[in-house]
Amino acid sequence: MTSAATTSVAIIGLGSMGLGIAASVARAGLMVAGYDVHADAVKALAAAGGRGASSVADAAMGCDCVVVVVVNAAQTRSVLFGEGGAAAAMMPGGVIVASATMAPDDARALARDAAALGLLYLDAPISGGAAKAASGELTVLASGEPAAFAKAAPVLAAMAGKVYELGDIAGLGASFKMVNQLLAGVHIAAAAEAITFAARLGLDLDRVYEVITASAGNSWMFENRVPHILDGDYAPRSAISIFTKDLGIVSDMGRTQRFPMPIAASALQMFLMTAAAGMDRDDDASVARAIAAITGVTLPAVKSVAT
Amino acid sequence: MTSAATTSVAIIGLGSMGLGIAASVARAGLMVAGYDVHADAVKALAAAGGRGASSVADAAMGCDCVVVVVVNAAQTRSVLFGEGGAAAAMMPGGVIVASATMAPDDARALARDAAALGLLYLDAPISGGAAKAASGELTVLASGEPAAFAKAAPVLAAMAGKVYELGDIAGLGASFKMVNQLLAGVHIAAAAEAITFAARLGLDLDRVYEVITASAGNSWMFENRVPHILDGDYAPRSAISIFTKDLGIVSDMGRTQRFPMPIAASALQMFLMTAAAGMDRDDDASVARAIAAITGVTLPAVKSVAT
Repeated sequence: MTSAATTSVAIIGLGSMGLGIAASVARAGLMVAGYDVHADAVKALAAAGGRGASSVADAAMGCDCVVVVVVNAAQTRSVLFGEGGAAAAMMPGGVIVASATMAPDDARALARDAAALGLLYLDAPISGGAAKAASGELTVLASGEPAAFAKAAPVLAAMAGKVYELGDIAGLGASFKMVNQLLAGVHIAAAAEAITFAARLGLDLDRVYEVITASAGNSWMFENRVPHILDGDYAPRSAISIFTKDLGIVSDMGRTQRFPMPIAASALQMFLMTAAAGMDRDDDASVARAIAAITGVTLPAVKSVAT
Repeated sequence: MTSAATTSVAIIGLGSMGLGIAASVARAGLMVAGYDVHADAVKALAAAGGRGASSVADAAMGCDCVVVVVVNAAQTRSVLFGEGGAAAAMMPGGVIVASATMAPDDARALARDAAALGLLYLDAPISGGAAKAASGELTVLASGEPAAFAKAAPVLAAMAGKVYELGDIAGLGASFKMVNQLLAGVHIAAAAEAITFAARLGLDLDRVYEVITASAGNSWMFENRVPHILDGDYAPRSAISIFTKDLGIVSDMGRTQRFPMPIAASALQMFLMTAAAGMDRDDDASVARAIAAITGVTLPAVKSVAT
């Protein structure tokens, strides 16, 4: 096993986050290959300076770093250790950078399985959105062995504006991420509840936004998502389905840990209600649309949704 | 009725907010008298440059502006229109600046009763805390007739860093304030839930604070209140009782308006749970202590509580 720094990188999962990471890593001068089940995404990679691969194994073949940017733990396990998976194709001693949001137990299990194959593993969930992925300014909440950090250093430097080194065992990155997602999900649902309540009270919603963002009721999510509502723009920057998933993981963790989280539980129900109303693929600010539909409140007209 | 600006001001309610406002108004060169049911507070007013009065009517006698900084609508009604109230004592054509947090319906009713007596009324809830009251930098969420704004202008200028003029009828200021309190209360309860969950996961809480305040899960309240938990400092800057009251008003408004607010309802239960556990007068970050007590999670040791 070597801890010499990485020079060839595979990106598995080329959604807006994965493509942005691929572009940032290519811009930093590293060799990049990538794969996604969507052929269009693989084609887009070429424009970003990478090699579009024909399979996970083709992308990972001989790479000393594999960045996994898929939806959840199950997909991460499948692309790493399933048939034709990346783990068997990449260089021995290489490092896996696993960036899907998942429960800490899943991150620990994946790290154990990687170690059994002689691979390094970084539990490395990301935040910041597509724009920051494209500009190489993501925030990475990472934990893992020092050797894994060392091996992944050039890739982290290319993709992230800020890397939190949260400890030397897998699961810590995932834990921090889940605490963040708990708060983020609650704050989106609360913003939706508050802005529709303000509409019911007959308030000028632009004025509400101005006042709240300058007051103690503000949150990062209120400030970021309420403009989508004011503009009627529900094209997904982050979809409802992301938070039914992430607050679902929080809910699972709460039951496993025997830890009650009534606020997060209420928020999860709001996202599920919105998904049930057919807005699963729309922007997560759509919670406000679901509340408005139920209560008869009028919000600014809907101008765009998921295509 | 005159709209010439105010020169003599009474402050009714000399808690930390009222005293701070009195000091700021005195500093601006206006004549200030004040009254509170607590004699110590009346004495403290002299040190702040005002005249300690022997009753509400004594404070308000001949004043052209009365600022009411009591706990709720019922107290506001009592000190204005009850026996020995301010309304009968102040100058005809004077302005009432009503700063207690209350339901919009209550603000509208008070404004009607003031108008019937030939008085101007400003629905003017405040935010910013004791320090900003003392420095004359409160935020005021105000609505009322232009004549009321004009009459109160020197007082508002002395007490506030920012005055939002939210419309020409009473009730709008209260509505904006309640939307803010809904969000603020939810964010405090969510911060308490998240930080105790992080403790259950075994995370370094100082690190959690560092990561979350730089991430999308941040809120004004998380940033402001979690340090109280990390320091074990539950001396009340704002007590649990404030949010059982304010989220109680939100709950009442929701039922009146037939508008469901499941997230705010969950948060109210968390504050009630904390009050039931005997922490009603402690800092509102005590929600975390209540959760920790139930779940057996260890938080930083408690160093101070309400005296």
